[in-house]
Amino acid sequence: MKLTILGCHSATPRYDAHPTSQVLEVKGNLFLIDCGEGTQVQLRRFKVKFARIKNIFISHLHGDHFFGLVGLISTFRLLGREEPLHVYGPKGIKEAITLQLKLGKSWTNYDLYFHELESTTSQVIYEDDKVTVTTIPLKHRVYTNGFLFSEKPSERNLDIEAAVNYKIDQAYFNKAKQGFDIENREGELIKNELITKDPPRPKTYAYCSDTAYYPEIIPIISNATALYHEATFLDEHHELATKTMHSTAKEAAAIAKKANVGRLILGHYSGRYKDITLFKEQASLLFENVLLANDGKVFDL
Amino acid sequence: MKLTILGCHSATPRYDAHPTSQVLEVKGNLFLIDCGEGTQVQLRRFKVKFARIKNIFISHLHGDHFFGLVGLISTFRLLGREEPLHVYGPKGIKEAITLQLKLGKSWTNYDLYFHELESTTSQVIYEDDKVTVTTIPLKHRVYTNGFLFSEKPSERNLDIEAAVNYKIDQAYFNKAKQGFDIENREGELIKNELITKDPPRPKTYAYCSDTAYYPEIIPIISNATALYHEATFLDEHHELATKTMHSTAKEAAAIAKKANVGRLILGHYSGRYKDITLFKEQASLLFENVLLANDGKVFDL
Repeated sequence: MKLTILGCHSATPRYDAHPTSQVLEVKGNLFLIDCGEGTQVQLRRFKVKFARIKNIFISHLHGDHFFGLVGLISTFRLLGREEPLHVYGPKGIKEAITLQLKLGKSWTNYDLYFHELESTTSQVIYEDDKVTVTTIPLKHRVYTNGFLFSEKPSERNLDIEAAVNYKIDQAYFNKAKQGFDIENREGELIKNELITKDPPRPKTYAYCSDTAYYPEIIPIISNATALYHEATFLDEHHELATKTMHSTAKEAAAIAKKANVGRLILGHYSGRYKDITLFKEQASLLFENVLLANDGKVFDL
Repeated sequence: MKLTILGCHSATPRYDAHPTSQVLEVKGNLFLIDCGEGTQVQLRRFKVKFARIKNIFISHLHGDHFFGLVGLISTFRLLGREEPLHVYGPKGIKEAITLQLKLGKSWTNYDLYFHELESTTSQVIYEDDKVTVTTIPLKHRVYTNGFLFSEKPSERNLDIEAAVNYKIDQAYFNKAKQGFDIENREGELIKNELITKDPPRPKTYAYCSDTAYYPEIIPIISNATALYHEATFLDEHHELATKTMHSTAKEAAAIAKKANVGRLILGHYSGRYKDITLFKEQASLLFENVLLANDGKVFDL
């Protein structure tokens, strides 16, 4: 899993601070998460092969998370895209996008599918042979979901030396990787664990933005390899966070700790702070492995 | 009149080529013309005092001319704007913008007025004590208007020496500036032209984008101080221009010549051309005073 931050600042786009968007690469597939104004330019700036994006996930319909979507969809049309595109987001997103395409008489010449979300309980919304995407219902001023990207378990790793020693015919190697016990050339049933090893633990990435401090998400994101959690405010503006249904750095860290995630990535910083290292400082009081998102930063999970 | 080009490239935003938007300053008032994605960042980059924008004119509802509008409107809200904002654009623009604000529960806390256009004949759509704005119906794939900004005539310049010589009482100076003949201290009626001079000729700026070659606009824009006319293509792609209802540089120059404008500013270049000086070269074959728009360029008209 490779995460590229295209933008991680709250509110309005500025010359050097872009609104939320990120690209998650999972085993060669690109998933776009949120799409603030200017996302298509950020995709070009950071040389993301964006024709490879097939699925876009929108957390909520505040401008800094979706005003760039209609432009990206239009650009795909101009670039002659033929691959279908799937958009997952709150109910209403389809009308907002299609109305604008209609007004410009600019229908896409590729298939565009909207998957509108309105459930307030966690659900699987995407699945292929490598990844599952599950919603993480969040608490914000409008209907909002985070997204949990879970790799599917890989095949077991074959211990070729052991397999040869146990006289397993090569024709059964794939079956062994799938976890089956195998009869060897001498008719003996060989336990799978004798000839294979555990594959790497599947990775999970939890994206949670925007949200107030909301411990209800902990069971969904627990033990995630990495958690991106919004931290719009520092502790001194705790009341403002509560009022606007955002989180402080410390609250994000409290969630990370209780959910026992591998690492915490902070973002969605309010523009009022000049020095974002304070976010890390405050979160680190509660949780050890804190990283700061920044536009253009790439995290290898 | 001062014209600041925020973006002047066709189609999709790129890192170094922004879609259409420009700011016209007329006697201290700022008018925004078109608003492609990323316009709010360009306004900041070029240090335009954008809180002073009170009127926005949108030519047509293709994305590269209006996808930045909803973001700018939202930013005004976040910045605590209180002044009313007026938006002039094709029918449908109100629904497109308000639907997005509604979905984000992000209503503006300032008054936002939409003036939807659907007339196919030229009409005055804005007037204050300094400027009149008139539509220039254009020919494009969707309903499109250009805009003619006309300064109102200034008062006549008083020739103080002459006024004193003709024994005009100072109390009548303002009336003289307004063009009236004045009775002097000896009861003699003094002709206005003896004590005043012509004011500077009022300036006019004609914005025409996007449009096919369309000579019907000539009577509306004739003798304009400056004409901005789209030139998406060079002559070698003349057929493509016709097909997509855009203009070539030569066609823009033909319009400028027939309309006898003071100068021609070209823009809306297709991304296929690396060297935009060719636009000037081709237009200059027909019209002498050709200038090239470029992002960030300022024209003092």
